[in-house]
Amino acid sequence: MTDKISFASDYQEGAHPKIIDALIRTNLIKSAGYGSDEFCQSARKKICAACNAPDAEVHFMVGGTQTNAVVINSALKSYEGVIAAESGHISIHEAGAIEFGGHKVFTLPHIHGKISADKIRELIENFEGDGNRAHMVKPTMVYISQPTEYGTLYSLSELENISAVCREKNLPLYLDGARLAYALATPKNDVTLADIARLCEIFYIGGTKCGAYFGEAVVMRKNFIPHFFTIMKQHGALLAKGRILGLQFDTLFTDNLYMKIGEPAIKAADKIRTALKNRGYELYFDTPTNQIFVVLDDKKLARLSNAVEFSFWEKLPPNKTVIRLATSWATQDSDVENLIKNL
Amino acid sequence: MTDKISFASDYQEGAHPKIIDALIRTNLIKSAGYGSDEFCQSARKKICAACNAPDAEVHFMVGGTQTNAVVINSALKSYEGVIAAESGHISIHEAGAIEFGGHKVFTLPHIHGKISADKIRELIENFEGDGNRAHMVKPTMVYISQPTEYGTLYSLSELENISAVCREKNLPLYLDGARLAYALATPKNDVTLADIARLCEIFYIGGTKCGAYFGEAVVMRKNFIPHFFTIMKQHGALLAKGRILGLQFDTLFTDNLYMKIGEPAIKAADKIRTALKNRGYELYFDTPTNQIFVVLDDKKLARLSNAVEFSFWEKLPPNKTVIRLATSWATQDSDVENLIKNL
Amino acid sequence: MTDKISFASDYQEGAHPKIIDALIRTNLIKSAGYGSDEFCQSARKKICAACNAPDAEVHFMVGGTQTNAVVINSALKSYEGVIAAESGHISIHEAGAIEFGGHKVFTLPHIHGKISADKIRELIENFEGDGNRAHMVKPTMVYISQPTEYGTLYSLSELENISAVCREKNLPLYLDGARLAYALATPKNDVTLADIARLCEIFYIGGTKCGAYFGEAVVMRKNFIPHFFTIMKQHGALLAKGRILGLQFDTLFTDNLYMKIGEPAIKAADKIRTALKNRGYELYFDTPTNQIFVVLDDKKLARLSNAVEFSFWEKLPPNKTVIRLATSWATQDSDVENLIKNL
Amino acid sequence: MTDKISFASDYQEGAHPKIIDALIRTNLIKSAGYGSDEFCQSARKKICAACNAPDAEVHFMVGGTQTNAVVINSALKSYEGVIAAESGHISIHEAGAIEFGGHKVFTLPHIHGKISADKIRELIENFEGDGNRAHMVKPTMVYISQPTEYGTLYSLSELENISAVCREKNLPLYLDGARLAYALATPKNDVTLADIARLCEIFYIGGTKCGAYFGEAVVMRKNFIPHFFTIMKQHGALLAKGRILGLQFDTLFTDNLYMKIGEPAIKAADKIRTALKNRGYELYFDTPTNQIFVVLDDKKLARLSNAVEFSFWEKLPPNKTVIRLATSWATQDSDVENLIKNL
Repeated sequence: MTDKISFASDYQEGAHPKIIDALIRTNLIKSAGYGSDEFCQSARKKICAACNAPDAEVHFMVGGTQTNAVVINSALKSYEGVIAAESGHISIHEAGAIEFGGHKVFTLPHIHGKISADKIRELIENFEGDGNRAHMVKPTMVYISQPTEYGTLYSLSELENISAVCREKNLPLYLDGARLAYALATPKNDVTLADIARLCEIFYIGGTKCGAYFGEAVVMRKNFIPHFFTIMKQHGALLAKGRILGLQFDTLFTDNLYMKIGEPAIKAADKIRTALKNRGYELYFDTPTNQIFVVLDDKKLARLSNAVEFSFWEKLPPNKTVIRLATSWATQDSDVENLIKNL
Repeated sequence: MTDKISFASDYQEGAHPKIIDALIRTNLIKSAGYGSDEFCQSARKKICAACNAPDAEVHFMVGGTQTNAVVINSALKSYEGVIAAESGHISIHEAGAIEFGGHKVFTLPHIHGKISADKIRELIENFEGDGNRAHMVKPTMVYISQPTEYGTLYSLSELENISAVCREKNLPLYLDGARLAYALATPKNDVTLADIARLCEIFYIGGTKCGAYFGEAVVMRKNFIPHFFTIMKQHGALLAKGRILGLQFDTLFTDNLYMKIGEPAIKAADKIRTALKNRGYELYFDTPTNQIFVVLDDKKLARLSNAVEFSFWEKLPPNKTVIRLATSWATQDSDVENLIKNL
Repeated sequence: MTDKISFASDYQEGAHPKIIDALIRTNLIKSAGYGSDEFCQSARKKICAACNAPDAEVHFMVGGTQTNAVVINSALKSYEGVIAAESGHISIHEAGAIEFGGHKVFTLPHIHGKISADKIRELIENFEGDGNRAHMVKPTMVYISQPTEYGTLYSLSELENISAVCREKNLPLYLDGARLAYALATPKNDVTLADIARLCEIFYIGGTKCGAYFGEAVVMRKNFIPHFFTIMKQHGALLAKGRILGLQFDTLFTDNLYMKIGEPAIKAADKIRTALKNRGYELYFDTPTNQIFVVLDDKKLARLSNAVEFSFWEKLPPNKTVIRLATSWATQDSDVENLIKNL
Repeated sequence: MTDKISFASDYQEGAHPKIIDALIRTNLIKSAGYGSDEFCQSARKKICAACNAPDAEVHFMVGGTQTNAVVINSALKSYEGVIAAESGHISIHEAGAIEFGGHKVFTLPHIHGKISADKIRELIENFEGDGNRAHMVKPTMVYISQPTEYGTLYSLSELENISAVCREKNLPLYLDGARLAYALATPKNDVTLADIARLCEIFYIGGTKCGAYFGEAVVMRKNFIPHFFTIMKQHGALLAKGRILGLQFDTLFTDNLYMKIGEPAIKAADKIRTALKNRGYELYFDTPTNQIFVVLDDKKLARLSNAVEFSFWEKLPPNKTVIRLATSWATQDSDVENLIKNL
């Protein structure tokens, strides 16, 4: 707790009230363990329906790094690696979980967190044309985030292009949707869950940052990774009381809650962006989702720090700093007003 | 859900009502991520106090297999292995998570889940005396469970003997307390949390099976495994909203709840054991905790299956079967009565 | 070097003179690297012919532990394990190379190093019948040695039985032939290279202990492990000057040298066995190959140690010791005479 | 074999005649296994003397990728990574052996294969200053090659600068000397073996490319990696007949052979470089060792390919190609003459 107004991240609060209701309502019902319970089954059905993917497999895991590690490490053979943006979460901020699992992350340059179909093609064709390729890790999967770690979005046509090159080159496309609710809630987004399910072999729908206590729902082509249950167990990624994950996602996918849960975050972020521009602040780049990147000189930085919690993003030499403000499903109007007053 | 009375496991319900209260009460408080929040801090202090170990480190993880894998794999060097009972959870039922992390599990014969100081000494001295030991995995850690997977308990003197041989031979002793609340709640137990903290280098206090939604609290000697935070992250074992773990353990260690939470399970199990004996059922062996192992012939097995959910344990050729009934912190008197009626 | 007569192992000398000749003869010929040279090609052809397996893949590696680790770890999926004798080389004396690669070794009791088809079947059927098998490592490969670590041999009918249960249960059978030349050279053996190639999915023909400086030749069903070249590279198991391996195996498989190279070892061992029996020594058990296991009391042990180098095998309480004498392709008659004089 | 003159690599021939002599001379001497023999002991002493490092540990392994993987993976803790040039052998051409062992390779931009002390410092200080560093792999070792993969050399002052920043930042410095003999043989080099031993915590002296059949000698500070013998065994990197490695290095370090063995390669390369320049060929950049990089247009490329074997290095769009010619300790004058005639 702090007296400052906090825009430090989108995982600072507990869970959406409807999730608490569901936990209370079902607390003493006995159910089977490890995700074989009725709540998980119900959540799976609703997620498949929302993705227009009736035959997809849905598995629930606890957090994003765990999900990325289990998926990528079990999808790849020992001599294979995954392609990601230099700024990708797996490239930097997962303490090397992919390498720890034995695999190389090939990094591509990014523009505000996004990579392009062309750069993927170029990397693959360089590999294909290299006479030493049998001595090299084979790039065989592509990892992207929607929204990206920079809050930006792939448009439908960009995603289609990436998917097309992946299919041409026989690379499964894996999408990290840790903050997917914030993409779905912004009018600037033209990519639906069904598009993602159609264009990716595997992806996950984020719960932790999108209104759940915790939890991520992996959606994959049927049997894309055989024996996934045992693989999850082996990674310590199988929750005994799997129902807790099932209940949260069942709630998030009842009455379209997941499609709307990000709206307050987007409205708050838009209001903050407008206020920043009006007061002459420089946005590092424009983002359509719940993350806002602002360039501050040292004086402004010092002043804002007194009243507001935010994330340091990067230094811009000689004397500027990029910070990040993040709104969430739980952001209150009063906090936004308060922030704006302090700009 | 099922119409049968279920004694299938001790993780069939949600969480203790006081945990739900704590989650509701704090839901919109903003807190820092990854276990650095005030709730985790408070829980850590209470756990250290309960363990009479003011300088211990406390880390929260999500489940038992995850905890065992992170602890053991990061405590061991590549050429080292861990000693466990043949029946140990890590030996059989964790899908090879220890081997997946690169380490051999040396198994010892067990008596109802327990291993002995003498057998540990013998294994170590055989290794020390083997001229080929530089070509062999070095056994350098001991894993035990309290209660064991068979519901039995190490007495204080047994635990002291094991600890003594471990210290003589320089082997850290690691205790898996997935069901520790059920040990602490039975009058037949003479091992306190403070004893465990004194005799083991590292252990975990189970939440998942003891009234929490999920979560295990690792207690270890200060700096026993340096950089443990990053190691947890790398294993996908660091919860973003760590507060949810902190809140659960803070509740369990407020007003001694954890010491008492297993009592209804023990009372229910004792009542069931008495009823079984009175009706001429054969107990496979006597257990002082919340697990009951019953030997059934095929006829009784069929009959009981109609009304009751339980776990299959093992076949006793030619025509008998051992089953397990498990009570929990949430077991209702009415379920016990109902079960007894159906015996 | 030592003044004692040494029967300590079968890898104490350099290489068969014909191998030296081949190295000298070809020393300044330039050839391509990594096993793509003409000598490897020639060796592969000769090995396929000797195995009556024209379509087999042949890969050369440097040593036995390396070969076992690369083969087993790349043949298994992460949740799979390998079955071996408790006394198997991979079970004990490879410093945990299989577990280091992520996999469990399931051990079966052995009789003088051998396991049986029945015990394999029992282990598999126990797994198949276990309700918790999705939480367990899946046994999916069988490892045997011919000769075993105890110098014993599987008969053709034993090997056929093992192969049959493996095929019924869909388990690849992998045979470690570190000392295969000594099996092929004894008249008590009825298993040919062609039998092994027919009954096993993969096996290796040992060079290091059978007259080469070093090297093992893996023979496997075509494409049994795809991308094996890159997998070898990744394990550090791909020799740059692969020709050195090719030349050694090309020599060993020219004019049937490999079939005969073990004969001096067998003759020497037989002579020693007869002498031991004649002088009232107790053989621990009878072996048909180049390893001899003798039971000695403390007095005889002390006396023999003065003149002869051998391997300690195990203690037989209260006061006896089992030692191992090993002959080799290079054992000299004079050494045998000398040993016998010292009995 | 080929009718073309081959300058494809420096591992195309067998071994230096003195090595063959040593093998022949000692062939039937019996010696102990696994590197405990007298030849290894002698080689160790001579190497320590040549490095002016009387207390160093010397271990022999078979090849470069194996050596890099065993050293780096056992020196690093699970959450640590190694810094290397983008062009480093471990970064590209070892099939991901470092990542396979669980570790990230941090790549730095290079100038003709070399990295600088400044770039290392910058990477470390960025890490130290990053608020999220506990979620990141920690860079804790530096890998360089001498000569580099591009045939270039670190000067003594460059190496001292790198060593200084490594020691200031507590990063062990590891030097890959796969082609070290070619550095030692060129007059442009001012870095001695003793300098390397003084400035690096660990390095290896290459045998495979420098006149041995195979083998690399790791030189490290005493006890820099405890239990290294067992670690080698576990990686399949311990040769049973270790004497073969000992004999080769004992020969290479007798009468300063290793210091001179590269001289023919340097003379040949210098002669080729001069001829190329005289005939108007463009060198991609100037190298002082046994590798020559030449820029060819398509026409010249086609013509040269008819008569000469070389390595493709990279395309220079639109229509040029960089090729590599490599000389070796075994390069004959006649081959050089022949090549020059064909330019």
